[in-house]
Amino acid sequence: MVTHSVSTSFNKNMSFTANINGHDVIMDTTADDGGDNSGPSPKKMMLASLAGCTGIDIVSILNKMKVMYSDFSIVVNAVLTNEHPKIYNYVKITYKIKLAEEDKPKMIKAVNLSTETYCGVFAMFKTFAKMDTEIDYL
Amino acid sequence: MVTHSVSTSFNKNMSFTANINGHDVIMDTTADDGGDNSGPSPKKMMLASLAGCTGIDIVSILNKMKVMYSDFSIVVNAVLTNEHPKIYNYVKITYKIKLAEEDKPKMIKAVNLSTETYCGVFAMFKTFAKMDTEIDYL
Repeated sequence: MVTHSVSTSFNKNMSFTANINGHDVIMDTTADDGGDNSGPSPKKMMLASLAGCTGIDIVSILNKMKVMYSDFSIVVNAVLTNEHPKIYNYVKITYKIKLAEEDKPKMIKAVNLSTETYCGVFAMFKTFAKMDTEIDYL
Repeated sequence: MVTHSVSTSFNKNMSFTANINGHDVIMDTTADDGGDNSGPSPKKMMLASLAGCTGIDIVSILNKMKVMYSDFSIVVNAVLTNEHPKIYNYVKITYKIKLAEEDKPKMIKAVNLSTETYCGVFAMFKTFAKMDTEIDYL
């Protein structure tokens, strides 16, 4: 059984620091919510988790397929529900990448492998949000 | 309709940088998974999101209740499933806090308000994981 553990300490006002395997990540709220904007909002950080998880999959898979690429980035847009507790109920992931015309089918395959088989964060998001993906070839 | 947007760019090897409202967060894998361990793993960062979300709720609520406290931290332990896609199916949040004996019921109320009403990240986690909470009074 694999377990993950993360410790998070309160700093001051609305600011917290999480220690994730030796890496400190500060979280905070904006001034509108009484914070000092010293770090990202915890909820939005979930969208970064999603991008990082599927991004690492894509890079691993393209590397295994010997596909050359550049300018790879991922934009995650998410819609929040209106009532508390506010959750993301629609999420769209846009993969932006530059690669050769003949490698486009491999990129599609990499995205499908990540979103259907490998990316645990995507699988978790699927339980509460409608998920869409698109590839934007640069 | 409120939407959140996060952009994440590939750096090199397995490393990505997410920009969350002006705050850069690096994500990476460890050497075991071919990365350089330059930042936290994206999946574990979800556990920090959870701690930050409920932590900010607790601080806001305790402040509104005029409760004095110190040494507040949150430990999140999560169990990962064995098969791909690997998701968290059991999560335990331990709130560690020092406050006066007579304020303990207010802390319990703050935790309940966060986990049942306010914390969107907790609500999202509830859709895929069994959730437990405990308070450790220091």
